[in-house]
Amino acid sequence: LCVPPDRSRPARHRPRVADLGEVGLLTRIAGHIGAADRRVVLGIGDDAAALQVGGNVLVLLTADALVQDVHFRLGTSGPADIGWKALAVNASDIAAMGGRPTHAMVSLMLPDELEAVWVDALYDGLLEMASTAGAAVVGGNLARAPLIIVDVALLGEVEPAHLVRRDGARPGDLVAVTGTLGRAAAGLVALPSGAERQDGRAPRRAPRAALAHVDPALVARAVDAQRRPEPRLAAGAALAASGAVHAMIDLSDGLALDLWRICEASNVGVRLDARRLPIDPCVTAIARVADRDPFEMAVSGGEDYELLFAADAAEAGRLVDYLTVETGVPATIIGRIEPASAGCTIVADGRSRPLQPGGWTHFGSGRRE
Amino acid sequence: LCVPPDRSRPARHRPRVADLGEVGLLTRIAGHIGAADRRVVLGIGDDAAALQVGGNVLVLLTADALVQDVHFRLGTSGPADIGWKALAVNASDIAAMGGRPTHAMVSLMLPDELEAVWVDALYDGLLEMASTAGAAVVGGNLARAPLIIVDVALLGEVEPAHLVRRDGARPGDLVAVTGTLGRAAAGLVALPSGAERQDGRAPRRAPRAALAHVDPALVARAVDAQRRPEPRLAAGAALAASGAVHAMIDLSDGLALDLWRICEASNVGVRLDARRLPIDPCVTAIARVADRDPFEMAVSGGEDYELLFAADAAEAGRLVDYLTVETGVPATIIGRIEPASAGCTIVADGRSRPLQPGGWTHFGSGRRE
Repeated sequence: LCVPPDRSRPARHRPRVADLGEVGLLTRIAGHIGAADRRVVLGIGDDAAALQVGGNVLVLLTADALVQDVHFRLGTSGPADIGWKALAVNASDIAAMGGRPTHAMVSLMLPDELEAVWVDALYDGLLEMASTAGAAVVGGNLARAPLIIVDVALLGEVEPAHLVRRDGARPGDLVAVTGTLGRAAAGLVALPSGAERQDGRAPRRAPRAALAHVDPALVARAVDAQRRPEPRLAAGAALAASGAVHAMIDLSDGLALDLWRICEASNVGVRLDARRLPIDPCVTAIARVADRDPFEMAVSGGEDYELLFAADAAEAGRLVDYLTVETGVPATIIGRIEPASAGCTIVADGRSRPLQPGGWTHFGSGRRE
Repeated sequence: LCVPPDRSRPARHRPRVADLGEVGLLTRIAGHIGAADRRVVLGIGDDAAALQVGGNVLVLLTADALVQDVHFRLGTSGPADIGWKALAVNASDIAAMGGRPTHAMVSLMLPDELEAVWVDALYDGLLEMASTAGAAVVGGNLARAPLIIVDVALLGEVEPAHLVRRDGARPGDLVAVTGTLGRAAAGLVALPSGAERQDGRAPRRAPRAALAHVDPALVARAVDAQRRPEPRLAAGAALAASGAVHAMIDLSDGLALDLWRICEASNVGVRLDARRLPIDPCVTAIARVADRDPFEMAVSGGEDYELLFAADAAEAGRLVDYLTVETGVPATIIGRIEPASAGCTIVADGRSRPLQPGGWTHFGSGRRE
């Protein structure tokens, strides 16, 4: 910055973090970082970085933090849940590259007055997830802070031929998603109180009395998805090894925004079929008593940690069957990749509407028009 | 934890983070994590983890965070300084393993109202340091938080034969340190206002009027060390390649505490010679006008980011000369490793006193008796 900023300008000419939003700020940061060197197979702008370190595998690296009162509240999430989720959301990023988690580094920021048993329980949950994911916790960092932050950096590995990026979707590919949509968003609505959306805005809650009319198993299913997401590691590896998947991302910020990310990176459009969306039964049940739109929860809810992928049209049907047989994970074809000129649309009730990338983002209004 | 905690116990039986301190909490966490698998050459408990990923080099991984109002204040540190330091403190950890930084992942937690140009300037400083250190920034994570936190995870690499750990010091080894001691601590005393020690306690400041009597070049030297520490990468690599260094650590928390860490890990004692400590001229000058003990600042001040190492006694003299010729970095022999039974002592004015590992720690009183 050779020219000093002009402080006489109106504030809107000096955007705040909230003005840019997560997508805008990431783009700005990517501009600073510029081109990577030869050891960087894939730098900023995907679920994880892919690095050449001299062996026969690529090393994957990702980081994601859970911030108190932004991503969780102490009143509704126990420490073991928070530890589990802090590792799970990173493992989900490795899954979306087709990789296997290998090593985790845990950076904890803690208030002085926190009881040590809370940290013990956090590690119980974190190590339970690490064991499930096959990752070794190899160290960490401790710092004092006025609130709790759990920031995990996770290494993984993948065979170079199996690396699946965001930017390989081609017109004609079919778009599919593992599992169901909206569970974690429904869980947020069903949680007793205080839990936060990723963007920090308070969600509208279901009244207690109304929730009593929902099958408790469905409520538990929703809350469990919010507290203990399961990264799709086996499915990610199987999809990557198939050779038929051209692009993949994990659903952390909602189907609409994460699908937009694939389209943006691949320079393509998409046409989703609303009737095909695998909306979870718990979403329908909870949305009804909470006066919410189940479709909106499934499309923009976020934190599903399912895998969204674009696959060769000739292979997609067989791929979905293969995935279920090999890993027990269901998947559903929900649309088709189109040329960029067609834009991103969703067909519902016979009408084609623009698909707004309105998932959760981490700053400001969270909406990108 | 099979037995539920007994909430009727007095509070002191349920220690808080501050009661355990950083050392106690790290030990507790290491107990949770347990034994590592075969891919983990070195797990928790050193400057960085060392990982076998299939190539001819070991991969090193470390993480360290700077927290607003704990590690820096906006009033005294500019964003470029904070970005520089966030990467430098991690590069220093890689240097202490004998390694080269390769890839950095930057996890930023930012308030909504922060101006985007602040983030630009942070990256300016961070990328300047990354370029100096030879590391590529390969991605990151953004999250909203009520205060600024810059958490960097840094990968490095080292030839397996050159990996230098903390736990290899042997009785008879000579102890040496690069550069000088206490500069950053003096910088904290000299900063206008508001900067924090790593443990978050406000340091005693030098009165403005008194500082006017100190050579401005010495004040600048102190402040610069506090704001823009230089990781000893070339020196670390040269020392590691020499084969004569048995243990090494970077001085982040003060000579006394970091030397205690080598002794604890290596199961040895040490005998320091106070007369030999390379106390920086700026420390002496600033301590005088600030009514501070320069010796205490050099021994317990922290944030020196110099390298402290134990080397074969027969080689140590030549090693120090070699280091200066090869890298331009001076080093000073300051003591000798003793059997564990001799404990940790410092000889000053002909008297031998216990060396208290009283550097900065990240929680509570910061003192470990």
